[in-house]
Amino acid sequence: MAYPLVGESKHRRLIELCRRANITTVVDHPDIAEGLSRLMSAAGLQLPVMVEVDTGLTRCGVQPGAPARDLAHQIARLPGLRFAGLLTHEGHAQVAGAPDQVRAAGLSAGQMMAETAELIRKSGLEAPIISVGLTATAKITATVAGVTETRPGIYVFYDRSEVLHRVVPPERCAATVLATVATRPTADRIILDAGTKALTSDRAGVSPPVAGHGIVVDHPDWDLNSLSEEHGATSIPADDPVRIGQRVEIIPNHICPVINLFDSMYITQGERVIDQWAVAARGKSQ
Amino acid sequence: MAYPLVGESKHRRLIELCRRANITTVVDHPDIAEGLSRLMSAAGLQLPVMVEVDTGLTRCGVQPGAPARDLAHQIARLPGLRFAGLLTHEGHAQVAGAPDQVRAAGLSAGQMMAETAELIRKSGLEAPIISVGLTATAKITATVAGVTETRPGIYVFYDRSEVLHRVVPPERCAATVLATVATRPTADRIILDAGTKALTSDRAGVSPPVAGHGIVVDHPDWDLNSLSEEHGATSIPADDPVRIGQRVEIIPNHICPVINLFDSMYITQGERVIDQWAVAARGKSQ
Repeated sequence: MAYPLVGESKHRRLIELCRRANITTVVDHPDIAEGLSRLMSAAGLQLPVMVEVDTGLTRCGVQPGAPARDLAHQIARLPGLRFAGLLTHEGHAQVAGAPDQVRAAGLSAGQMMAETAELIRKSGLEAPIISVGLTATAKITATVAGVTETRPGIYVFYDRSEVLHRVVPPERCAATVLATVATRPTADRIILDAGTKALTSDRAGVSPPVAGHGIVVDHPDWDLNSLSEEHGATSIPADDPVRIGQRVEIIPNHICPVINLFDSMYITQGERVIDQWAVAARGKSQ
Repeated sequence: MAYPLVGESKHRRLIELCRRANITTVVDHPDIAEGLSRLMSAAGLQLPVMVEVDTGLTRCGVQPGAPARDLAHQIARLPGLRFAGLLTHEGHAQVAGAPDQVRAAGLSAGQMMAETAELIRKSGLEAPIISVGLTATAKITATVAGVTETRPGIYVFYDRSEVLHRVVPPERCAATVLATVATRPTADRIILDAGTKALTSDRAGVSPPVAGHGIVVDHPDWDLNSLSEEHGATSIPADDPVRIGQRVEIIPNHICPVINLFDSMYITQGERVIDQWAVAARGKSQ
């Protein structure tokens, strides 16, 4: 779903997957549609394909309205493909500004999708799935009539970006990075053994754009203000009783790329580790 | 070397390592020195310990001069420890500004180290190793009389930060991320299948602070200007003949955390893959 599938190795894996499961993919360019059409025809398969629409993120996607409609018809005409609907990632909404601006951007994205779907239906083509996806506006964009699917991602764990968006309070964030106070070079500065290799330097979704690299749980007056690769420099009150060796939990700015840094996660209940999950979908270089 | 070793599991591993190899570590706080002293005495070992000095990065380290001298004497007095010298990471120098300011900050860091070493020697203690470490100023700081060791890191591969520092031209950068043009939503924008999970969002050392997330090799007029997790949005000339599916190499902003994202690296000679190296020291959560 991340981007249109191109290249021989990805095409080969797509065919294997299509024989085992119901797969739907996205397209935002005629050349990609034609490549998939040749692939699917040769394999004797039919692939449901959605048109990716750019509702404002300026990443992937064709423009809403006529460009999306025209690509939908092209897909519908190509052998081996079936037009399945429209998809967008309205990621721009989360950095639109104040809460009412975030809400307005989410609503607007949903409306563009619904209007484009209506345009396609009027031109004689069914558009069964109208899919949006963003945690920060999930409960807003999904209220737009015509939207049939929402794909929030961060909501699985939540993170500091969603706390800043007032989607959840910090205690609803389920994934934290466990760090140790490695040293205290000055009374008002500790060094945590968690830097960009544990927290990333990602600031995606941190809006309004406040400083800092995470929330240190139970220490609201600590400021995790500077990361290097292995170090998290944190300003603390000079009279803070924290001791070297003490452990703290950090809610990261953006949980998605943080999960990608680790080979496994520890699942806890209270203070007890009850399970360990492998992070299966990371480190792939093909 | 990254930070002082605290905690039972790290202490246990330190003892194991000390029985197999010559290990030297750093300390910047009396409590950490005392913990290591108890550990080493109990194990019947003696550990060479350097004092980490803060020459301007405000991360780990005691202040140069008297504070460093005093900690050196404390280490020398503690059973199980041997004072081995001084260490700094002059990372602040690479973001000091224009090239002459970078050079001046590197020289200044080296001088602080040499002067502190001299102060310690005058107080009756040997200070055999005087260690500095930063690629951007490696050839400058190492010229200071009294500095005995330099620990550049990025120089192993080099990266865009060192190109910007004019340490090397782009063709001297040995590690690149291989990406595929996944789509071209508009004539002047392509999407590479390399986002923060392949390049990180790290901007450490990118100084002067220019925009962009890397150098696209052989495409000097492309601007890799926006990353999300899996996507690298790149502005290109509208008449660029690039095709979807084409592969390009990217020199990352900061190579160190990029290596950390991959389980292995492909070693090439021309167009031929001649080896594959495992990235052994990543993904550790203990």
